[in-house]
Amino acid sequence: MNHRFVFIGAGNLATRLSTRFQEKGFSIEQVYSRTEDSAKALADRLQTAYTTSPEDIISDADIYFVALKDSAFQEVLPKLDIQNKLLVHCSGSMPLSSLEAYSENIGVIYPLQTFSKKREVNFSEIPVFVEANSPENEKKLLQVAGAISEKATVLDSENRMYLHLSAVFACNFVNHFYTIAGELLKSKNISFDVLHPLILETSQKVQAMEPAFAQTGPAVRFDKNVIAKHLNVLREFPEFGNLYEIVSESIFKFHQNK
Amino acid sequence: MNHRFVFIGAGNLATRLSTRFQEKGFSIEQVYSRTEDSAKALADRLQTAYTTSPEDIISDADIYFVALKDSAFQEVLPKLDIQNKLLVHCSGSMPLSSLEAYSENIGVIYPLQTFSKKREVNFSEIPVFVEANSPENEKKLLQVAGAISEKATVLDSENRMYLHLSAVFACNFVNHFYTIAGELLKSKNISFDVLHPLILETSQKVQAMEPAFAQTGPAVRFDKNVIAKHLNVLREFPEFGNLYEIVSESIFKFHQNK
Repeated sequence: MNHRFVFIGAGNLATRLSTRFQEKGFSIEQVYSRTEDSAKALADRLQTAYTTSPEDIISDADIYFVALKDSAFQEVLPKLDIQNKLLVHCSGSMPLSSLEAYSENIGVIYPLQTFSKKREVNFSEIPVFVEANSPENEKKLLQVAGAISEKATVLDSENRMYLHLSAVFACNFVNHFYTIAGELLKSKNISFDVLHPLILETSQKVQAMEPAFAQTGPAVRFDKNVIAKHLNVLREFPEFGNLYEIVSESIFKFHQNK
Repeated sequence: MNHRFVFIGAGNLATRLSTRFQEKGFSIEQVYSRTEDSAKALADRLQTAYTTSPEDIISDADIYFVALKDSAFQEVLPKLDIQNKLLVHCSGSMPLSSLEAYSENIGVIYPLQTFSKKREVNFSEIPVFVEANSPENEKKLLQVAGAISEKATVLDSENRMYLHLSAVFACNFVNHFYTIAGELLKSKNISFDVLHPLILETSQKVQAMEPAFAQTGPAVRFDKNVIAKHLNVLREFPEFGNLYEIVSESIFKFHQNK
């Protein structure tokens, strides 16, 4: 019961989530993606069927997982014919209500992690947040989420939005700063590898202490000399210089007000 | 020979570095700090002597480690009487030449890591960058650095500055974004702990792939819907909203130009 899934979307999240479900004994009956290449790639990985036409999505699966970018919901979902089957999205920033027009049974399974097609993650550690439009649907989804993670809990749409936003800072923006660090090193032919231990330690530190207490560097010390030297180097990289100033000021203000 | 050290400075870096040297059999003869509290705290930890007067720093040690904030160099160093003993600073952003006025034997040992007094780090993995004003001094410092880390190499002042700047992005700025993420969650009474797996994975991902390839999130997808929703939430946090816009734009531009 509730074991036959369809994946609508074949990106990073769909790939990791569907693979994990399959490992845990669920059956992925079909994969939809707008493009043949990605539909086929995921279907091949899962050894299942695929389609690039929303109209051809099968009607008799138990749960339909929508792992599309938010802006694609309205293109794809009106074309489904799923006869009130359980329709679930995986987006941090879409409310549960975004599915109301498409089924009487709706929910959310939101795994809080960054996914890449090629990189395995330890799914059992990932917090997974569940929401549904009825106690029965919530129970079903908690079971399904509990099968892939030890950290499945219920969370409403508004809180999920905050979670997603905080994840953008803690992951996407962080990764961009890794990228900038790498670009600066590249300009001097220094390998990004030298930053590996620092990057790991920075992330491990905040597993044990609050990040505000872990803050180090010239901005929190208000070390004007160092800041001036860095800005001087960054004259070659004006956009990074702009970010440097704004983030340094934010660090200083935040810690001054504490 | 070369085993008797003095530490000028008693902050995070001085604490971790002197402790590591002591573990490896070097003798810390004295600690200087401007404030009694921090001088005594580090001296107690090392079971050694301390002073708060630069004039009272002993003259007969082998190597003097300057672990002061850059702006304190000029207050403290002119008061030393170290008779051309090997004077070494540990700053990413100060050139070797900043020590020229104070000894004929000068160098740099710069460990690329974030240090906290209370947190141990795996020193043998930390890249340590060495510079000196003569082959003899360089050789001495490579030996000393090689005793505490498996990754000791020579790097000149200009390259070290780029390294330090990249570390500010990859560590200090990253940590500030962890802090902001925590503040956003705190406003909804959600524990920062839910971000732990995401933060770890984000840092581990770039040990295996270039950060530009690891980039995920609404900005790189140019998902305007999500960005608009996040900015709407951030109206309550105008300063974080400003950062959000600027960093998102930087991500988008960087990846568009690739």
